[in-house]
This record gives sequence, C-alpha cells and structure tokens, in this order.
Amino acid sequence: MNWLVVFSNLQVSSAGTAGPIYMRIVDCVRTAIESGLLSPGDKLPTNRELSSFIKVDRSTVARAYLELSRLGLIDSQVGRGTFVSRGRAEQIVDPIVDASWQFERTLVGQPVQAAQPAGIEATTDQVDWSSRYSRYVAGLSGLISRLPQFAADDAISFAGGIPAQDFYPSVEFKKIVHSILDSDRGDRMFDYSPFNGEPELRQSVIEHLAGKGMDVLAEQLLILSGSQQGIDLVANLLVDPGDAVLVEEPTYFWAISNFRARQARLIGCHHDEEGINLAEVEAGLRRYAPKFLYVMPNNQNPTGLTMSLNRRRALVDLCSRFSTPILEDDYSGDLCYEGAPLPSLYSLSEKKDLVIYQGTFSKALCPGVRLGWLVGPEAVMEKLSFAKRTSDLATNSMAQVILNEFLHRGLYQEHLLRVNAVYKRRRDAMLSSLEKEFKPFAGVRLIKPKGGLFLWMSLPEGLSNRDLLNFARHEGVVFSPGDLCFSGVGGLNYLRLCFIQNDETITADGIARLARAYKKYLDYVNASASGLASQSPRTSNHVLI
Amino acid sequence: MNWLVVFSNLQVSSAGTAGPIYMRIVDCVRTAIESGLLSPGDKLPTNRELSSFIKVDRSTVARAYLELSRLGLIDSQVGRGTFVSRGRAEQIVDPIVDASWQFERTLVGQPVQAAQPAGIEATTDQVDWSSRYSRYVAGLSGLISRLPQFAADDAISFAGGIPAQDFYPSVEFKKIVHSILDSDRGDRMFDYSPFNGEPELRQSVIEHLAGKGMDVLAEQLLILSGSQQGIDLVANLLVDPGDAVLVEEPTYFWAISNFRARQARLIGCHHDEEGINLAEVEAGLRRYAPKFLYVMPNNQNPTGLTMSLNRRRALVDLCSRFSTPILEDDYSGDLCYEGAPLPSLYSLSEKKDLVIYQGTFSKALCPGVRLGWLVGPEAVMEKLSFAKRTSDLATNSMAQVILNEFLHRGLYQEHLLRVNAVYKRRRDAMLSSLEKEFKPFAGVRLIKPKGGLFLWMSLPEGLSNRDLLNFARHEGVVFSPGDLCFSGVGGLNYLRLCFIQNDETITADGIARLARAYKKYLDYVNASASGLASQSPRTSNHVLI
Repeated sequence: MNWLVVFSNLQVSSAGTAGPIYMRIVDCVRTAIESGLLSPGDKLPTNRELSSFIKVDRSTVARAYLELSRLGLIDSQVGRGTFVSRGRAEQIVDPIVDASWQFERTLVGQPVQAAQPAGIEATTDQVDWSSRYSRYVAGLSGLISRLPQFAADDAISFAGGIPAQDFYPSVEFKKIVHSILDSDRGDRMFDYSPFNGEPELRQSVIEHLAGKGMDVLAEQLLILSGSQQGIDLVANLLVDPGDAVLVEEPTYFWAISNFRARQARLIGCHHDEEGINLAEVEAGLRRYAPKFLYVMPNNQNPTGLTMSLNRRRALVDLCSRFSTPILEDDYSGDLCYEGAPLPSLYSLSEKKDLVIYQGTFSKALCPGVRLGWLVGPEAVMEKLSFAKRTSDLATNSMAQVILNEFLHRGLYQEHLLRVNAVYKRRRDAMLSSLEKEFKPFAGVRLIKPKGGLFLWMSLPEGLSNRDLLNFARHEGVVFSPGDLCFSGVGGLNYLRLCFIQNDETITADGIARLARAYKKYLDYVNASASGLASQSPRTSNHVLI
Repeated sequence: MNWLVVFSNLQVSSAGTAGPIYMRIVDCVRTAIESGLLSPGDKLPTNRELSSFIKVDRSTVARAYLELSRLGLIDSQVGRGTFVSRGRAEQIVDPIVDASWQFERTLVGQPVQAAQPAGIEATTDQVDWSSRYSRYVAGLSGLISRLPQFAADDAISFAGGIPAQDFYPSVEFKKIVHSILDSDRGDRMFDYSPFNGEPELRQSVIEHLAGKGMDVLAEQLLILSGSQQGIDLVANLLVDPGDAVLVEEPTYFWAISNFRARQARLIGCHHDEEGINLAEVEAGLRRYAPKFLYVMPNNQNPTGLTMSLNRRRALVDLCSRFSTPILEDDYSGDLCYEGAPLPSLYSLSEKKDLVIYQGTFSKALCPGVRLGWLVGPEAVMEKLSFAKRTSDLATNSMAQVILNEFLHRGLYQEHLLRVNAVYKRRRDAMLSSLEKEFKPFAGVRLIKPKGGLFLWMSLPEGLSNRDLLNFARHEGVVFSPGDLCFSGVGGLNYLRLCFIQNDETITADGIARLARAYKKYLDYVNASASGLASQSPRTSNHVLI
C-alpha cells in the first residue's frame, strides 16, 4: 500500500476530530492498520516526506511516530526506515473486557498456546478464507490466545463486568425450575419460542418497563438472546460499510468491535460531568450524517457517568432536529445507588420513532440466562424481528420461562433491593480504599459512579495501563485496560475497575495490591532512562469527582 | 431509477445462469426490486424498448413480463405502460418456512393487523432509519403481519420443520434438570458460559463427532446459540457486500435471507439424483470466484436429497482445486432411515482448511434448547469466535449443562433409535398416502428422502403453490411454499411437506385434504378463462423418485 493513499485520507477522516494534530496522524495510521490498508512490514514515509506531504511541523510527525511506536504499532529500524510492526496484534488490544471468565479462565488460569501467524491470507495454496472482516478481526482475536500471563490463580479481579456470583438468585431460580418442570408448563421449556419471545415474558417485560414510566406496545418489543444481540441486530439493520456511527468516547468495547466489524466509521464524542458533550454530538451530526447515536445514559460503560436530566432532554432534542436515531443502551439502569432513576431517552422523546431502547436483566441478576430486549418504532422493530430470525431464529425457551416466573412472583424487585444495598457498600469500599491507598500519588483521578458496576480511573498522561497491568499481575490483581473502550486512539492512561464482584475485604486487599504495583511502576519509570521520566506525575493530589 | 441501468446489469448478472433468456429478465427485475434499485411504481421499458436494448426477440420479453406479472412483481396498465407493483410484498414471499409456530400461532391463529405502508423511508419529517438492509427486509418482513389467513385453528400442518413434539425427551430432561439443580453444578447453570462453550459439553460434542469418524481438536470447535448462528457468523466473517456465494438451488430459506441481507450475490446450482450438479458448481467457481459454497449433503432442505459418496468426494476435490471454502450444514444428519450415514465433506477433505462443518442436536431432540456448533480450521475458528462474541457474547449456560448431561448418560443415542424408527414410519405413511391420494392427478412428482424431515413435491409447471395453499387452507391443511427456497426465480410449482410432525393417522387425513384441495384448484384452473387453462397437466402419471 502506497503511504500517499493512507495519508491522503488524513484530512477527510479527522476533520472533525478533537485533539492535537499528532494524534490525528496516530489515528490515521491505526485506522489504516485495522482496516487492512496497511499491513505488517509496510514501510511508512520518513519524517521529512510526511511533514512535507501533510504540511505540518516535523516535530509533530516525530511525536506521532513516538506515540505509534509506544503503542507497538510501528518499528523504526536504524538506516532502513519505519515499518508497520509485525507484532502489533499483541500490543494494540487486550481483550480483558467484559466477561471476567474470559480473563480469569482463559488468560490467567490456563496454559497459552505458542504464537501463530496472524492470519492465513498471505500463505499460498491455502483455502481462501479472507475478507475485510477477517483482516480486521485477525489483529483482535489473534491475540486472545497469545497474551502473556503473569497473574497467579488467586489474583483479585477488578476486570470484567459481571454481577457478583454470590448474589445470583440461584436458590429462587432452582425452586422455580423445579416447580415449572412439575407443572403443565414444563414441556414449554424445550419447545421453540416464538421469534419475538415467550408471550408471558413479553407481557412481564412490558409491565417492568411501565414501572419505569415507559409506555410500550406489544408490537414494539423484541426479546433477545442477551443485550449484546440488540447491538448486533441494530448494526446489522442500519450499518452499511463506510457509514458513520456516533458513539461516546470512551464506550463499550463489544459495541466498538461490532460496529467496526461492519466497517462503520466511528465518531467519538467525549463526556463532561453531565454526560455526552452536545457540541461534539452536533458537530458529528452535521459533518458525518451518522446512521445513529449509540449512548448509555445510565452508569455509562466504562466511565460510570450518569447523564443529567437536562442533558438527556437536550440530547433527545438535538437528535430529533437532525432526525437521527438513537440506540439507548440501558444495560445497568436497575443498579442505582443514589437518587431516583432518571427517565430514559425513549420516554423523553416526543418523536415516537426516534429511540430504540435496549435493556437486560443480566447485570442485576446473572449473566448465564442471556436475555435482553429491544423496544422501538413498530416499523423498525418489524425489520429487526426479521434480522433476529436470520441471526438465531429464536431465543432459548428455558431462560424465558424461568425469568418470567421470577418476575411474576415479584422476586426481581426484592432482588434489586438486596443487591443495590450490597453493591452500594462495595462501591463505597472501593472508593475509600482508593482514596487511602493512592493518597501518596499525584495526578490520579476517579469518577464516582451513582450506579452500575464500574469505576473509571485515570493516571497521569504518559503512563501506560499495560505497563501497570504487568506490575499488577505480579502483585496479584487485575483490571480492564481503559484504552480498549476508545474508538479512536488514546486512553492508555485509563483503568476500568469493576467494584461489584468482590466483597469489601477483598476489595481493600486488591486496591492495596494495585497501589503497591503502581508504586513499583512509578519507581521503574523514574529510574528508567526513557523519555517518560520527563513526564513524571504532576504534584497536585488526585481528585474524586 | 432509469431502467437502462437496471437492464445494463442483465448481461453481467446472469451470464452464467442456467435457464432460458426470459428467466434472466425475470431474475434481473426481481433482483433490482429486492435490492431497492427498482421501487414500487417505477415504470419499466416497453416491450419494444427492452427487446431492442438487450437484443432479444419481442416474444421473449413478453414471456418475461407475463411471468413477472404472474409473480405479482409488475402491473400492466392499458395505455399507460408497465410498472413495478405496489402490492408486491404480499406476493413475492411467504414466511411459512421453518418454524411451524410462526405459521400456526402468528399467521393462522391470531388476528392480523391492518396493512401498513411498506417502510418509513419515503415519508418526510420522520427519523431516518433507512439502510440497504432495511430496504431489502421491508419486502420480506413487512408481509408477515399482512398475509391473508384462511386456515382454521385445527388445520393439519405440514409446514415448518421442527421435530415431533410428542417425542421431545421432556421426561429425561426434567430428571436431569432436577438432579443438576440439586448438585454442586447447579449454580453453573446461571453463570456466564465461556464464549466457546461449556468445557464439558465441548468434550461431549468432540466425542459425538468422533463417533461419526470426525477428528476434531478443541481449538476447532465453537458452541453456538443454535445452528442458524453458524450461518450468521460465517456470513458475517466472509461476506462483503457484492461477494458471490454458491448455494444449492433450492436451499434453506433463512440461509438465503441471511446471505441476501449481507448483500451477497447468490449463485444457485441445481441438483440431480446424486446431489448438487458439479458442472454448475465448477462454472460458478470459475465465473464468480465465490467466497464459499453453502451445502447440505444430508437430507437437503428442502429437497430431502442425500448426496452420494462419489458426489461428495468429487465436490470436495473440486472446491479444493479452486481453494474455495465449503460451509457444510449437517442440520439433520442424525435422522437417517436407510443405510449407513455417509461421511461428511469435512471428513473427506484432505485439505484440512477447506470445510467448516455445522451441526446441531435440535432436529433430533427439541428446538427450544438452541444449541449448535461449528468445526473448522483453527485460524478461521479464532476469528469466528470473535464474531460470536460481537454477536451475543456467549451461549446460554443452562441448555449446555443439561444437554451435556443428556449426552453423558448415553440418552442421545437411545433417543435417536426411538425417533428414527418413528420418523421412518411417518415418512412411509406420507409417501403411501400421497401415492394413493394423488393417483388420479398427472404430473405430480416426489423425491423420496432417506432421512431428515422433508418431502419435496412438484406440481405441473404453470401451477402455483400459493393458489393451492389458498384452497388447502379451506380444507384445513397447510404446507411450505417451495419457491421460498429458491435464491433465483421459479419454484412456484413446488411444495415442501414436513413428515415428522404428525402421526400416521393425521398424516393420512392431511394428505387426503391436500388432494381434495388440489382437485378443487385444478377444477378452478380448468374452468377459468385464464391462460393457465392451456397449460393443463400432462397425462403421464406422477413419479416417485
């Protein structure tokens, strides 16, 4: 691939992007690698060539190449030039994201395979399994079996994002299953479910939503095999390759992956204290005519931010003015520890065809049941129903029958009261441990979440969560690297900590381990002869928003 | 849309298509409508204009327009010209396909909504939910709530394709669930499953496949939320818009829908007695460089054909020579009523990266569990695993834990012996009823299946399964219209009958009803002043292959 083509996209692809120019160059190269436009081993232009071509200062290009090198995306070879790294897959993305089993069982607890070639496209005389998706995924999925492992089996995990296993309503579920099996409804558990869901569960979900002030007709509801399927179906329905999608920056890793796999162009909008930044949303709407906005107003993943009521109203008005649909992901709205829950964007919208609302019981109950739902305009739901059938025909019947009975017996509200009390204590425990343990360190910032599962933590710029993770594994604690949640570049100095999985004692121990790891990492940075030493932490203390 | 653009595609899109020229014109118009290139109300060229433009005889264009009109795709208005039909959605496709609940509960048993506009794209000041997929799906999904209903609630259904409910292993499943819930494995039912499936079920599936002579490594196996998900993931991984995919003609409706939704170009290859026609496959491979071949060697849906061993070997060799992957869908291989099961294409392939094999227990057990699997080359499975996670993160745990125990206790093989004996009797009952009841009618043909669920029946050309279905509903019997299974045009004279759902007595009654309906339909055709009367059935008797 001629680099002129890559960088001729620079003006186009980052015209509306916030941030310094060197980051646009980084973004451009990263995107080109992910899309397969640049391949491992491809030569990049020299500093002189590139600065002259895109008309920026040479120091800007130098800074961009430094960042790209730090990200492991490029290698400079003295006397030969700068090349796309062959080992990039291991370093760009780390799949320690939203399912802690994935981290604990696959990455930490089990032996790791020897490294394999990144894909089979390049080899001759092999069957041709190539595609654009395939090239994209090669870098992401390949690394899953190739990550280095450090942590012991007894590591404390703040990674992932699943409910606390000790609070699964297993006892109630077991009672329900026994009683259903012995009733005349037992056989229904093994039959096909109607494609839009079991009629009784559908009615229960409509009543559940009515309790949130949402007025939903049967024709507007589709039961899903988990909440992730909603993202998949909406993207399947709406995203043609090259389409723009507005997302929060940062946002949910598996949404990014899904949209990217469909070759969408992601336009990230940052947050302030009240939620997504409306000026950036408006700029995105004007410049990119996106297919839709994907947003999590409650306990946003990964930041934990809850959007204010005013911001919700203004966001709905803005998207309504541009007639741009919203996919509202309410993955954890029922986990609310402060104040009353705020109305959904769906409820606030006067235009009844503006919002698709996506919900699930998984985060409050247990994830194994794999149930979620979409609510939206009838005409769109009709098409999404078709997409659901092309995807998996129908949702597992057993889970639906069981969950319906759980709701019918009023157990869900009881369960919520219990877990919300527990999770609130766990959140507070993590916050106070962090305040205590990180007091000695300057420049560490936290966002205090009002609900949900996640606590978002930033280190001083220039520090890397990957390096910290290596130290942390040695201390026996793990977390999710925050940069995975960025659709653009950046985020290397962020950590996502899940606070609901461990009790207060374990959390205190884990945060103490994390602080020890951080201390060792800082010592290493300061001792090292690398340029990072000049970017040592600032002297102001850390702030809790 | 200017018609010149539509028909300039004619040469390109149908260069390799078998069949007469008028069918190419039909195909061209149908594709243009489905892809949104032609919209309802668009004017088509006159006979004179089109015959001159594409250089064919005027009688050929006349025949094509007649067929298009009969399909309900176009309307001719005297003095005004020929237009794309506004009511086409109701007439092209009928979703009575692979889930009888869909037919019986949604279409037959429940009130139907008033007709709605086909989509919301055209309306102003509405939120813009449009996309290419959306336009495609509008015609397909829109009609689901708009089909006319005729059949009474007690209609006998040969539609759909699910196992006989009276043979679900409900008693065994209930015992298993009770015992698991009371064991220390009970909690596992509600936890996340690893994305590639529960370890114990994975081992059980590998052993099950070993029993079929298939050598599968753990790294090659991915557990799915039902077999349909395999089609979805492979298409997601491999199909870029515009890519060609080779399929059998006819083939599985929800595979066609899935590939079409991804804007694939489907190249259909017909069957002979031994299976898919290799000359057509080779022509397809040469001309279209397809991404893969989708094929069902056992009890092909809808024809019921089982591919011979020689044909399997030759097909594998052919695809291997072209390095073109095969997606082998073995949705019902365990339902085998005659002779020993033949080896899979996967087993026969010397190139270990040629075939992805897709299987399920759903058709032999019960569909509500929604479990299936893919087996394929490690490098490809790694990417499919990633696609699986972007689609629904993980498969429902409960179903996996239960099914594993069912396999572990040796109950699956016992169950197979039982249902194969029953289904064989039901097949034979349907065949002998058909022989008896359709004896008076000429030109009716059947394929006798060696296994599976389906019996494929053809009426004399010129007759329409839709018209017959209307008569059949009045008699209290329903079936799946065969044309739904064609990726190209045609197939209106085919019926798919599912023979495993009803016992011998009900089957005999249902086939008698069908014969009465057919008699009334023929009387109607013969009495009618329409051109169809001239295409009256031939005098040879019907043939059982």
